[in-house]
Amino acid sequence: MSYKSDIEIAREANKKPIQEIGARLGIGADHLLPYGHDKAKVSQDFIAGLNGHENGKLILVTAINPTPAGEGKTTTTVGLGDGLNRIGKNAAICIREASLGPCFGMKGGAAGGGYAQVVPMEEMNLHFTGDFHAITSAHNLLSAMIDNHIYWGNELEIDERRIVWRRVMDMNDRALRDIVVSLGGVANGFPRQGGFDITVASEVMAILCLADDLDDLRKRLGDIIVAYRRDRTPIYARDIKADGAMTVLLKDAMQPNLVQTLENNPAFVHGGPFANIAHGCNSVIATKTALKLADYVVTEAGFGADLGAEKFFDIKCRKAGIAPDAVVIVATVRAMKMNGGVAKADLGPENVEAVQKGCPNLGRHIANVKGFGVPVVVAINHFVTDTEAEIQAVKDYVASQGSEAILCRHWEKGGEGAEELATRVAELADGGWSHFAPLYPDDMPLFEKVETIAKRIYHADEVLADKKIRDQLREWEKAGYGHLPICMAKTQYSFSTDPNLRGAPTGHSVPVREVRLSAGAGFIVVICGEIMTMPGLPRHPSAEAIMLNEAGEVEGLF
Amino acid sequence: MSYKSDIEIAREANKKPIQEIGARLGIGADHLLPYGHDKAKVSQDFIAGLNGHENGKLILVTAINPTPAGEGKTTTTVGLGDGLNRIGKNAAICIREASLGPCFGMKGGAAGGGYAQVVPMEEMNLHFTGDFHAITSAHNLLSAMIDNHIYWGNELEIDERRIVWRRVMDMNDRALRDIVVSLGGVANGFPRQGGFDITVASEVMAILCLADDLDDLRKRLGDIIVAYRRDRTPIYARDIKADGAMTVLLKDAMQPNLVQTLENNPAFVHGGPFANIAHGCNSVIATKTALKLADYVVTEAGFGADLGAEKFFDIKCRKAGIAPDAVVIVATVRAMKMNGGVAKADLGPENVEAVQKGCPNLGRHIANVKGFGVPVVVAINHFVTDTEAEIQAVKDYVASQGSEAILCRHWEKGGEGAEELATRVAELADGGWSHFAPLYPDDMPLFEKVETIAKRIYHADEVLADKKIRDQLREWEKAGYGHLPICMAKTQYSFSTDPNLRGAPTGHSVPVREVRLSAGAGFIVVICGEIMTMPGLPRHPSAEAIMLNEAGEVEGLF
Repeated sequence: MSYKSDIEIAREANKKPIQEIGARLGIGADHLLPYGHDKAKVSQDFIAGLNGHENGKLILVTAINPTPAGEGKTTTTVGLGDGLNRIGKNAAICIREASLGPCFGMKGGAAGGGYAQVVPMEEMNLHFTGDFHAITSAHNLLSAMIDNHIYWGNELEIDERRIVWRRVMDMNDRALRDIVVSLGGVANGFPRQGGFDITVASEVMAILCLADDLDDLRKRLGDIIVAYRRDRTPIYARDIKADGAMTVLLKDAMQPNLVQTLENNPAFVHGGPFANIAHGCNSVIATKTALKLADYVVTEAGFGADLGAEKFFDIKCRKAGIAPDAVVIVATVRAMKMNGGVAKADLGPENVEAVQKGCPNLGRHIANVKGFGVPVVVAINHFVTDTEAEIQAVKDYVASQGSEAILCRHWEKGGEGAEELATRVAELADGGWSHFAPLYPDDMPLFEKVETIAKRIYHADEVLADKKIRDQLREWEKAGYGHLPICMAKTQYSFSTDPNLRGAPTGHSVPVREVRLSAGAGFIVVICGEIMTMPGLPRHPSAEAIMLNEAGEVEGLF
Repeated sequence: MSYKSDIEIAREANKKPIQEIGARLGIGADHLLPYGHDKAKVSQDFIAGLNGHENGKLILVTAINPTPAGEGKTTTTVGLGDGLNRIGKNAAICIREASLGPCFGMKGGAAGGGYAQVVPMEEMNLHFTGDFHAITSAHNLLSAMIDNHIYWGNELEIDERRIVWRRVMDMNDRALRDIVVSLGGVANGFPRQGGFDITVASEVMAILCLADDLDDLRKRLGDIIVAYRRDRTPIYARDIKADGAMTVLLKDAMQPNLVQTLENNPAFVHGGPFANIAHGCNSVIATKTALKLADYVVTEAGFGADLGAEKFFDIKCRKAGIAPDAVVIVATVRAMKMNGGVAKADLGPENVEAVQKGCPNLGRHIANVKGFGVPVVVAINHFVTDTEAEIQAVKDYVASQGSEAILCRHWEKGGEGAEELATRVAELADGGWSHFAPLYPDDMPLFEKVETIAKRIYHADEVLADKKIRDQLREWEKAGYGHLPICMAKTQYSFSTDPNLRGAPTGHSVPVREVRLSAGAGFIVVICGEIMTMPGLPRHPSAEAIMLNEAGEVEGLF
C-alpha cells in the first residue's frame, strides 16, 4: 500500500478564500488583512472589539515524552479540530508558526501531516506572513542600539562584559554561536564577545506570545534586561530607548494569522517560542481571540506534557487568565514501544510486552495533568503498522489509570478519523469537570517553585543547585521578581534531566546549571543541562534538495 | 505659512483598494496577491503571459550630484507619474523599495514627499511585503551552508582565508562589520574572520533586480562566487548546492509589488540594490512588467546621473534589453547654490550668482545623458524659498545648453504641479528622438571600459590602478568575464572621487582601490575610495523617537 506525501496531499487541497473562513468566525473582510488569497491577519481593532464576548471551551493537546518515532501532536490538534467541526461543533485550532531555519536542516514542517494538515503548508514553513522576520528585526535593532550606545560614550555605564542581549537569526548557523564583534578599529566600536541565537529563542518571541495587546507589548519590551553595570544594577531596553521602535516593528506581527485546515476549518497560526528557554505555546492573543469566536478552541503545547503542558498551565494560562476545559494526551503505539526499550529500527514487529512496558510514561503524564484539575483523554494516533493487540494494550492500560484512550485515524481519514475523539472531548469540555489550578501560587519562593515542579511533575527526589544559584534567585526576589513563574529548560526526552532515561523514572535528581531572568516575558528560566539556542546544519542539509520544480512548486522542503 | 508633514499627508490619503489599481492596468484580482488592502504582488503567471505585448515609453528620472539640500528625485518621479495621468496618459511609476535599517538611523523615507508620495508610506519604510527579509534569508542560508560544508570535512577544499561571501542584516550595525566567527570550540567550527553587510549591499539583491524570471534567478544565484581554493579556482554557490533553496526563499520576492500614489495611480515598488557596489535601480522584472501594462513608465536611478543614470544605461538597460525614450534630470535651486559653494546654513537668502556658479554641474549631466542618445529635460523641483530670479537663472543656463528646464510644483500640488513637465516629457518620449546606445560595447577590454566611464562621464584625465588590479581584470577576461559591464563604486557627491569637489571638475584622476567580480549579478565592481557596506547608527538614532501613538499610528519614522 502506498501513501501520498504530506506535500502531495497539501497541493490537492481545495482551499477556500480566506475571507470565507473568516466569515464563518464572524470576521468581516475589512478586518482581515490578506496575505495572498489563503492567509490573513485579524486586525487589532476587531480583536479589541471582542472584549466582553463569552469564551468558548479551551482544549489542550499535549503528549508523552517525544521519541524519534514521532507522536503527531500537531496532526492530532488539526484532526481533533476537524473532527469537532464534523460533529457539528463550531471549532477553531490554534497552533504555532514554524521556524524557517530548521526547515533547511532536517526538520519537517510544522503544519500537521497526512489528511490532518493546515494549508498553505509551504508558506507556513517559509516566510509565512513575516512575523518571525519582524521579531528578528526588533531583536537586532535593540542589539545594534546597545553597541551604538557604548560607541557614542556609554552614558548608561554598561559593563561590556555583562551584556546579556545577544543577536538572532532565523537560520541554523553554528558559526554564529560564539563570535567577537566590533573588530577592525575605532570606527567599529569596542571589541567584545557576542553571539547569535535562533529567532525562536529570542525573548522578543516569548514576549509577543504573552502580550495582551500593543500597549502590553511595549511595556514588556521595555522591561527586557539587556545588560548590567559594574555594580550589577540592570539596564533595560527602555533605558536604551528601543521599546517604541521595537513595538513599531512588531505591530503587524502582533496580529494573529488565520489560515485553514484541509477541511476548510479555521486555524490560527501565531507565534512560536522555543519550548525550553521559553514557554513553547502559540500566542495568547490568538488563543484569546479564538476563544471569543469559536465554541471550541483546540491548541497545543511544546514537547511532552512534563515540559509543554506544565508551562502552558503555569505560564500561559496563569498569565493570560485562561483555563483549559479538557486535555488530550497524544500517544502512539510506536512511541510506547520506544519508551518500553525498543530501538527505532525494531519498531516493526508486534511487541505487546514492550508497549506495556512503555505505558507508565503515559500513565505519569495522565496523573500529572489530572493534578492540575483538568479532565484527560488519551488519543492513540494510529500508525499503519499498529496491531490490534498493541492498541488494546494501550487502551487497557489507560483504563486501569481511570482514563480513556481513543484510537484516532485522522492522519489517514482527516476529521472523520477523529470523530470519536471529538465527541468525547466535547463531552469532557462541556461537562464542567475542569477545576483548573496552577501547580504553585505566585507568592511561593522561587526555589520552592522549582522544587515543586521537579518533585510533583518529574517525580525527582531533589533539586541540586549551588549557593550562587540560590543567591541569585533570592536577589531577584528582593528586586521584585519573586512572583514570576518558572520556565524549566531541560531535555524533552525524559521526565528526568537524562535524555536516555525513558519511561517513568523515579529517585533522580534535577541539577540546575544556570538561571536566567526574562523580565520582559515575565518568567525565570531554570536551565538543567545543555540547552542549544543556535542549531547547526547536518552533513547534508535538506536545503541541498530544496528547489522549485518545473511547475513552480516547492520540492524537498518536507 | 505652515506645511503638513509627509506622514500627515500620507495618513489623509484616500487610498483605493489595490484591486482597483490593478484593474486599471488590466491585472485581474486573481493575479494580484494582496498584502493587506493596499499592497499586492503581481503573479509570475500573469507576467509570463505578457510576453509579446507591446512596450510603453520608458522615462528615466535622474539628478545632479546630491547635496545635503536634497533634490527630490523620488518625489519628482511620483509627481511626473501623476502629472502624466492628469494629462490623460496611462502612466505607471517604478521605484525602489526602502531599506529598513537606515530608517532607524537618520534616513528619511523612500516614498516621495509632500503631495507626491506613494502610499502606504509607513509600511514601505518598514517590512513592506517582506522582500528584503527574503533576500536576507537567502543570503545567510548560503553563508551558513559554506561554514557547514567546511565543518563536515570541506570536500570542496575551500580556502578559509578566501571566503568572499559575508553575511547580511537589514540593520545599521557597525559592530558586525568585522567579526570573528566559529569561536567556542570544536562544535562551532573553524574560527575565521567574517562580517556583515547591510542587506541592500547583498549580491542576492542585485541578482533579484536583474533576473528575468525564476529560472534566470536560479542560474544567477548558482553563478555567485563564494570562495576560492588555495589554487585560486573559484567555488560557486552551485557547488555548495544552495541555489535551489535560495530560489525557493526568493520565489515570492521575485514578484513585483503594486501600490499607489496619493492620486491613486499605479506604482511598482520592487528591489533596492545599493547604488554604489550594485547598480541602484528597481527590478528589471517590475520595469518590464510596467512597460507591458502602461503607455508611459517613469523610473529612477540612484544618486546623481554620473553614477545612477550611467549604471541604468550600461547595466540595467543593456542587460534587460530596454531603452529609455526620455530622461528627466532633477535639480533644485538650493542644490545649485550648494554646488556653487554656499554652505547649507546660508541657503536662505537669494543668491543668483551662486546658482549660476553651481549650474555647470547640471550642465555636465545634461551633456553626459545626451551622449547616450536620449532626449533630456530638466525638472526644477520647486522649493518655497526659491526666488523668481534664481529660477530664471537655472532656466537661462539650461537653455544655453540647448535644453529646457521646467519648474515643477508637485511637492506642493501633486500631479497638477507637474503637468507642464509631463506634457513636455510625453512629447519627447513620443517624438522618437531617442537613439539610445550604451557608453561602451560588451567586447571592450575591462580596463578600457573603466577608462571610458572615467573620461567620458567624470571628465577625469586618467584612471590610476596598480598592476595587481590590471592583472586581476585580465584574469577575469581570460576566465570568460570580459563581456561584463562595469559597476563603478565612488562617492556620489562629486564627478570626481573627492566628495568635496563640487560643480564640474576637470583634470582629476580616478584611483581604483579594488575590483570585485559579481559573477551572479553579472558585473565587475570597480571601487574608488572607501565604500561603506554596513552603516552605523548616529549618536541619537531616529529609533529613539519612533513609536506608536495613541491612535496606533507610527510616529517618528520620517
